[in-house]
Amino acid sequence: MPNPHTALPVVGMVGGGQLARMTQQAAIALGIEFRVLADSPVDSAALVTASTTVGDYRDFDDLAAFAATCDVVTFDHEHVPLAHVEKLASSGVLVYPGAHALPYVQDKIRMRERLEQLGVPVPTWASVESVGDIEQFARTHNWPVVAKAASGGYDGKGVWLLHSLDDAIPLLGRGDVRLFVEENVAFTRELAALVARTSSGKSSAWPVVETVQSDGICVEVVAPAPNIHVDRAAAAQRLALRIADELDVVGLLAVELFETADGIVVNELAMRPHNSGHWTINGSTTSQFEQHLRAVLDWPLGDTAATAPVTVMANILGGDDGNVGLAKRVPDALTDPDVHLHLYGKGVRPGRKIGHVNICGDDVTTLRARAARAADQLRRGAAT
Amino acid sequence: MPNPHTALPVVGMVGGGQLARMTQQAAIALGIEFRVLADSPVDSAALVTASTTVGDYRDFDDLAAFAATCDVVTFDHEHVPLAHVEKLASSGVLVYPGAHALPYVQDKIRMRERLEQLGVPVPTWASVESVGDIEQFARTHNWPVVAKAASGGYDGKGVWLLHSLDDAIPLLGRGDVRLFVEENVAFTRELAALVARTSSGKSSAWPVVETVQSDGICVEVVAPAPNIHVDRAAAAQRLALRIADELDVVGLLAVELFETADGIVVNELAMRPHNSGHWTINGSTTSQFEQHLRAVLDWPLGDTAATAPVTVMANILGGDDGNVGLAKRVPDALTDPDVHLHLYGKGVRPGRKIGHVNICGDDVTTLRARAARAADQLRRGAAT
Repeated sequence: MPNPHTALPVVGMVGGGQLARMTQQAAIALGIEFRVLADSPVDSAALVTASTTVGDYRDFDDLAAFAATCDVVTFDHEHVPLAHVEKLASSGVLVYPGAHALPYVQDKIRMRERLEQLGVPVPTWASVESVGDIEQFARTHNWPVVAKAASGGYDGKGVWLLHSLDDAIPLLGRGDVRLFVEENVAFTRELAALVARTSSGKSSAWPVVETVQSDGICVEVVAPAPNIHVDRAAAAQRLALRIADELDVVGLLAVELFETADGIVVNELAMRPHNSGHWTINGSTTSQFEQHLRAVLDWPLGDTAATAPVTVMANILGGDDGNVGLAKRVPDALTDPDVHLHLYGKGVRPGRKIGHVNICGDDVTTLRARAARAADQLRRGAAT
Repeated sequence: MPNPHTALPVVGMVGGGQLARMTQQAAIALGIEFRVLADSPVDSAALVTASTTVGDYRDFDDLAAFAATCDVVTFDHEHVPLAHVEKLASSGVLVYPGAHALPYVQDKIRMRERLEQLGVPVPTWASVESVGDIEQFARTHNWPVVAKAASGGYDGKGVWLLHSLDDAIPLLGRGDVRLFVEENVAFTRELAALVARTSSGKSSAWPVVETVQSDGICVEVVAPAPNIHVDRAAAAQRLALRIADELDVVGLLAVELFETADGIVVNELAMRPHNSGHWTINGSTTSQFEQHLRAVLDWPLGDTAATAPVTVMANILGGDDGNVGLAKRVPDALTDPDVHLHLYGKGVRPGRKIGHVNICGDDVTTLRARAARAADQLRRGAAT
């Protein structure tokens, strides 16, 4: 049911994190009503949205009541139980991405199986249930190997680098997590390819970016990926567009890639706005958040060209002096007049992602330094 | 009192129109809480803001109660009674622009008197109280002359082109409006110079733009003003910065200008985000809405450079088939992938400003046509 005041559609997002918060900014411009199902009234998106429902995304009744107020339902995270999504869809709710696509981001074993079926390059991997399974994998592929939880991981959680069987034993002692191991890919850098796809199958790709992680957390994105060969960039875009088609993704699909001496392999998928696309708010004609809305509404997609030769995004991580410390330092970070600040309204905890900065210009080296300086100032005070 | 959750300041805006709505988008990025004092819960900004107070800006108690929840109070319009603003300020509320500056936008006679004192070029004008006064003015300056209401006018309202005394008589019959007349300036085009100024006196200017009016309503803005001489553009920026200093404006100041064969003369002033600055959302490093927030918070101002060679803004005026008609046509207008849509969530009435589009690129002629096509499609359907 469109909004009675504007006659424009109502989009509901399950989850009230920063992705929903930034989607609200895009919704304001499009004139559509944006509703959020949040865990709490002080969730990042709830703070800035007129239509917040506080509820539990694990509870079908909460989901159904929320969906009943929306024309389309989409997600700020991948944790909604699949059975609930299926039930919503079968009751007539438009839910994007759909229940047929979500398993591949909810379960990394299913994701890898499916990508292999499609002939998409992925790291060599194996499901493991015992120390013997890991030992066998390591015999072929050499230590260290990477162990991953099939579900529930993010920002480095659920990923372990195993140097020997001793490292593996504590993991297997936990009965609550399905594991797989994969080769420790000798990548030269990490890339990400972000695409959007509508329910009628139209799609578009942003320029491929380089992502820089520290302790498993994305700390920096450079768009486009510096010095990437034009053929490799095009191949990564084609690959992401093909995966979106094959999995029938509606909305955004982020494909995290390892670049190696031989080419690219797919590391992870996400079917939502993604940290690797935050640069698009200031560096592309169409932001990933607006594009996600256009895609789930089956509206025409916007242009995905970069609007500057280079855009650098740096995540702001929480410092050790809480929100009061952060607030005090905001004006300092803004003394660089080109810094675009994006704060999420989150409680500051050491190392927590609480915002990001974007900066656009010509020179990669300078822009990286300026973005890092602003992000560091917000975390720690005096510029590094 | 900063927001207890984020420790960041709370900015309150009196008025819930589209200027407040777009300021909310900027506030989301900065992480600050944005509150709106709206006439109704379905005001443009109220629809998209978590913290809306419904109240009457003409009622001091409503204003004071609202201000008590904010660190800084600012305005989406110029209609708050001056005595209320003075009383708020004297009770310790930070109100920007202040009571010393507002008279020059609330009363056009005071504005012209003050600008003349400052040596700023304005059209030749005179206060009039009788038919005789008008006749005398027209004898010197020739018919037609322009009559204006000293206060309350906007979008062409409160402005009359008088071809003879016959046109003047109905105006003077109204006792409720103070009038002045001015020469009908033979301008070649209209320009606008937009600047921001902080409470500590730092200021910055955007590129000077050309504005195109139809029936007194701004329908198009081209940024920067095509083929403007670099000296004239610089002079217009300097003039606007000087007026902001002299009047001690905090926040935004828009200076509407006539360009004539001889130079520029000031037509109007506004001390708030302004239609002539909507292009900055997509066409400048810092949008006017973000800059207004930075200015009233006394934070460093952002860079005001244009991010594309040309940005064209076209206002979307309401068609005759209401919100349902508009909603139906939104996807059509978005088939141009470079069109940035900004809808205000307003009730559609014929000719009412209900949104705008921005488009950035290289070629003025093409961009004007594309912007006009999108705006016309939203108003009337099939492209013109």
